[in-house]
Amino acid sequence: MAVSNYRQRLRDIDNTGFGPNSSVEGGRLINSDGSTNLHKRGIPIWERISLYHTLLRMKRSHFLLCIFLFYTSINLFFAVLYFLTGVEHLMGADGAKSFVDKFMEAFFFSSQTLTTVGYGRVSPLGMMTNSIASIESLVGILSFAVVTGLIYGRFSRPRAYLLFSPNIIVAPFKDGKALMFRLATYKNNHLTDVEANLTLALHEQENGKTVTKFYPLKLQLSKINSLALSWTVVHEINEESPLFHYKMEDVAATKMEVIVNIKAFDDHFSNIVQQRTSYTYHQVIYGAKFLPMFERAPGGDYTVLELNKINAHEMVQM
Amino acid sequence: MAVSNYRQRLRDIDNTGFGPNSSVEGGRLINSDGSTNLHKRGIPIWERISLYHTLLRMKRSHFLLCIFLFYTSINLFFAVLYFLTGVEHLMGADGAKSFVDKFMEAFFFSSQTLTTVGYGRVSPLGMMTNSIASIESLVGILSFAVVTGLIYGRFSRPRAYLLFSPNIIVAPFKDGKALMFRLATYKNNHLTDVEANLTLALHEQENGKTVTKFYPLKLQLSKINSLALSWTVVHEINEESPLFHYKMEDVAATKMEVIVNIKAFDDHFSNIVQQRTSYTYHQVIYGAKFLPMFERAPGGDYTVLELNKINAHEMVQM
Amino acid sequence: MAVSNYRQRLRDIDNTGFGPNSSVEGGRLINSDGSTNLHKRGIPIWERISLYHTLLRMKRSHFLLCIFLFYTSINLFFAVLYFLTGVEHLMGADGAKSFVDKFMEAFFFSSQTLTTVGYGRVSPLGMMTNSIASIESLVGILSFAVVTGLIYGRFSRPRAYLLFSPNIIVAPFKDGKALMFRLATYKNNHLTDVEANLTLALHEQENGKTVTKFYPLKLQLSKINSLALSWTVVHEINEESPLFHYKMEDVAATKMEVIVNIKAFDDHFSNIVQQRTSYTYHQVIYGAKFLPMFERAPGGDYTVLELNKINAHEMVQM
Amino acid sequence: MAVSNYRQRLRDIDNTGFGPNSSVEGGRLINSDGSTNLHKRGIPIWERISLYHTLLRMKRSHFLLCIFLFYTSINLFFAVLYFLTGVEHLMGADGAKSFVDKFMEAFFFSSQTLTTVGYGRVSPLGMMTNSIASIESLVGILSFAVVTGLIYGRFSRPRAYLLFSPNIIVAPFKDGKALMFRLATYKNNHLTDVEANLTLALHEQENGKTVTKFYPLKLQLSKINSLALSWTVVHEINEESPLFHYKMEDVAATKMEVIVNIKAFDDHFSNIVQQRTSYTYHQVIYGAKFLPMFERAPGGDYTVLELNKINAHEMVQM
Repeated sequence: MAVSNYRQRLRDIDNTGFGPNSSVEGGRLINSDGSTNLHKRGIPIWERISLYHTLLRMKRSHFLLCIFLFYTSINLFFAVLYFLTGVEHLMGADGAKSFVDKFMEAFFFSSQTLTTVGYGRVSPLGMMTNSIASIESLVGILSFAVVTGLIYGRFSRPRAYLLFSPNIIVAPFKDGKALMFRLATYKNNHLTDVEANLTLALHEQENGKTVTKFYPLKLQLSKINSLALSWTVVHEINEESPLFHYKMEDVAATKMEVIVNIKAFDDHFSNIVQQRTSYTYHQVIYGAKFLPMFERAPGGDYTVLELNKINAHEMVQM
Repeated sequence: MAVSNYRQRLRDIDNTGFGPNSSVEGGRLINSDGSTNLHKRGIPIWERISLYHTLLRMKRSHFLLCIFLFYTSINLFFAVLYFLTGVEHLMGADGAKSFVDKFMEAFFFSSQTLTTVGYGRVSPLGMMTNSIASIESLVGILSFAVVTGLIYGRFSRPRAYLLFSPNIIVAPFKDGKALMFRLATYKNNHLTDVEANLTLALHEQENGKTVTKFYPLKLQLSKINSLALSWTVVHEINEESPLFHYKMEDVAATKMEVIVNIKAFDDHFSNIVQQRTSYTYHQVIYGAKFLPMFERAPGGDYTVLELNKINAHEMVQM
Repeated sequence: MAVSNYRQRLRDIDNTGFGPNSSVEGGRLINSDGSTNLHKRGIPIWERISLYHTLLRMKRSHFLLCIFLFYTSINLFFAVLYFLTGVEHLMGADGAKSFVDKFMEAFFFSSQTLTTVGYGRVSPLGMMTNSIASIESLVGILSFAVVTGLIYGRFSRPRAYLLFSPNIIVAPFKDGKALMFRLATYKNNHLTDVEANLTLALHEQENGKTVTKFYPLKLQLSKINSLALSWTVVHEINEESPLFHYKMEDVAATKMEVIVNIKAFDDHFSNIVQQRTSYTYHQVIYGAKFLPMFERAPGGDYTVLELNKINAHEMVQM
Repeated sequence: MAVSNYRQRLRDIDNTGFGPNSSVEGGRLINSDGSTNLHKRGIPIWERISLYHTLLRMKRSHFLLCIFLFYTSINLFFAVLYFLTGVEHLMGADGAKSFVDKFMEAFFFSSQTLTTVGYGRVSPLGMMTNSIASIESLVGILSFAVVTGLIYGRFSRPRAYLLFSPNIIVAPFKDGKALMFRLATYKNNHLTDVEANLTLALHEQENGKTVTKFYPLKLQLSKINSLALSWTVVHEINEESPLFHYKMEDVAATKMEVIVNIKAFDDHFSNIVQQRTSYTYHQVIYGAKFLPMFERAPGGDYTVLELNKINAHEMVQM
């Protein structure tokens, strides 16, 4: 399909009041970490948030803190129950006389029940205390079932582990120029069937109003078989490109944003992985070219990929 | 393939007595929550029902209730065994004299064994009681393995979290009109490669008999790259549409049903997600158009999607 | 691609000594439960068998038996260790004097350690016994981790739950005849994007030798959008069909086998599911047509699918 | 697309300084076990390594060793804490007088807490020791949650279980010759929709410099429906082949490497599986043909696949 036809079609659709690429009117569409710059409203937060996924994507330190706080809260909750029921129903804890000692016995008995360690120095007596202990050990097992699931979910969550060059450059290309950025995997993973999908968002003037227009960017190569080293994604700025008629100095006015979506099959996870990022006009470098980021090892037996050179470039005459 | 050919092909197939889209003769085909309005018979229920999936799709409160009942039943079952074997074989429980006290000791010992908390105030003596306790702790571990799996299965089950507009509207479109409904994700998830597939079911008269005919509905755009905000799915009612020759007042007689299937790739789960719904003729609004449901945030830095406006529309002249 | 070209290509490939569809020379290729009728040799059995998948596909009763035997064996193994180390290092078990009593104490202590129930009536003393107990509780936890994984793997294993008609029939179709069988899902699952793939295996005479030839069978409809009710898969026996020149009475001599592979997307598992079966010439019924297997419910509100009628057919004149 | 066009395109892309197939300059690109012969540098090792996947792909014996060492370390760490806090806070351990005895009591109490077996002969007293024990049992449960996840991840990791012939041969084919290797699954798994993808890497002279060029190798058949027995993958060396103009004696100079990627759908895992390997010029046998590796069982009821004959070939006149 010719790009001109495609633009025509996009315009037709825009006329109907909805954009196929979900047009926005706020600031940046996609943050550079790939999350959407979007707030949802109108339904309660507990319906809008997926607790599971929030816990899955949380930083490790925060996740561990959450678990620790959860553990302590449940512990405390049952400790209060035992305390209120009466520490005299905890056999072995009858030596505790002061409030603090009594509560401490209740708290640690609670902890030993929740984790099912159950040493037995302190053990429940009577219907009430026994019932609470019975429920607490069930709660313990269920909670740790949840935690087991979360931990497995966290480390088995398919991720692409892609490193993108912080800048997107305009480099000489054939007889003209091209927009380029570079990516590589930074873990010991291997991607196959890697697809890149670029969408350009431009703020344009139309009938005196600023509207956001979306254009697909045609790539020199939009799919590669295998990504072992690095891949430089290239959009040639030729007559078919929506950027062809813009001068570098006008780009800032359009609040240009290049939305990048990379999709691939990953061996690690035997699953499709996907990573998004976005470049705004602040990140464009005009007149540069990337320097190689891999070389033959001194011994010559293997190749070295230098990840710190992902953005390595030198300025060139356009 | 031209639509007329396609209809021809469908008709040919119908002549053979079976429909490619699984024709029905009962009421509504798909309920609005996406489940099928269908009963299966002829084989025993335990072969027809997938217990695992029933537990997976159950409401959270029902699921917790099931676990609690299961836990209590197993507990009780083993308590009865210990009781019948003789509470005198439970060391530490010999202080219990009454029936109730004895059973209580057996019950809570059972609970402490099932959860493997094993305080040890009460402990088994003799071959028989020891064997039962040994089996009970195995049963406990296996049961909680099942529960761990179910809990993980529940929260890792891929879901699209799509909100559909409760109504499907007939709106002015280009020089004619179109059938439209709107959808958005209501969680913090992001769908890519979103595909919509619509099937129309009509009760038509053929040789004096009422038969259900199925037509695929051609969409203005049947696939979008990314669903960050909302998507209005549009079927133009033009000459190629099976709805072209029906007047609004005749639609009720056809018991029109639009079956919607949305399939997408979800980042959260790194998996394909799917959601179905269906609109019947009761849900059609003739002569309306959807109002925008997103806007620039007051500060201008992000976009706000108002989920409570999913069905917002105003009446228009057709 | 014309079928004649395809056959030509198949023949060319056969000349090279290997078949694209993995030709066989033994009896039936695929058993009706979908497993391959094939033995692998030449490497040791432990490299040929995937223990995990064997445990996953085993009948439930066998699986439970395996777990029970495994549990008892580990238990026994450690019991022997404790016994050999000396029951005098098990505090609380010193009352046991006879061989049987001593071993019983060792055995049940072992069981209480393996399941981590640890009542504490009996507890380990000394370096040796403590070390064994420490290792046993680790073994216990690891074993039950394996079992948890297996149980989850068992019930989350994607399956199509398809019921095939036991017979494949030759029915009148248009002006000629067609080969037909029927399938339906028997659980509360819903399949979409269902694809059928049929391969015909015929023993033919070639240069005086019997060779197995494989032909793809073209279907009237090889993909349906949704399988809510039943699907009758139809291969028309016309001039393009490899069966066109065979008479019914000759089919037995060819040891005809129709290998069926169904692939679909399942909502339950949000995964692709696949099921195979195969029909041999013994299962062919010549001159019959399938009877409907679903009907409107008496109340008219839903559709009833009668799974026991999956093979319901009546004989017809050809 | 004609191969000549494709080569042209590849050359154009090479001119821009980046290869679509990630060109390398070191030795072999892919090791025969399918891993990449590549070192990544420039970012810290903990960011470059995925611990989860390293543990997933580790040999079973190493994995068990890791778990054992981890268990012992955590155990020891908490033992030191109890010891420093004072063994007098461990009730039941007060009989221990010597340093060794005291430490042993601390160590085994630690072990009983970590595994939550908690016999109770020794139990914690006082705020400090109780708190440590409470944290240790939490650490225990979390650790074993991680281990449960790893174990499940290990045995549910989709793998193709493909056995490749150790050699790649040049055999007579039609009027010319072809490059061939053979593969089969060695487990009781069944692959469908099997795709082979071959890339040839040649060191060529260009303007006096040695450069690595990559060519896709066209296959006689690049996809088969089902892999029950063996599959011989065939690249015909005809005019369109990049190997056509090379003589056997020149191949060594090019450091020829054939990179093989096999992708299939596996029933076992209901997932896509993938396996890579690579053949270098050392593994080429010129003038040979593969011998059959399957035969009818003596009884005639099933087929036998002899995996030890995967490389069976005889020399032939070219």
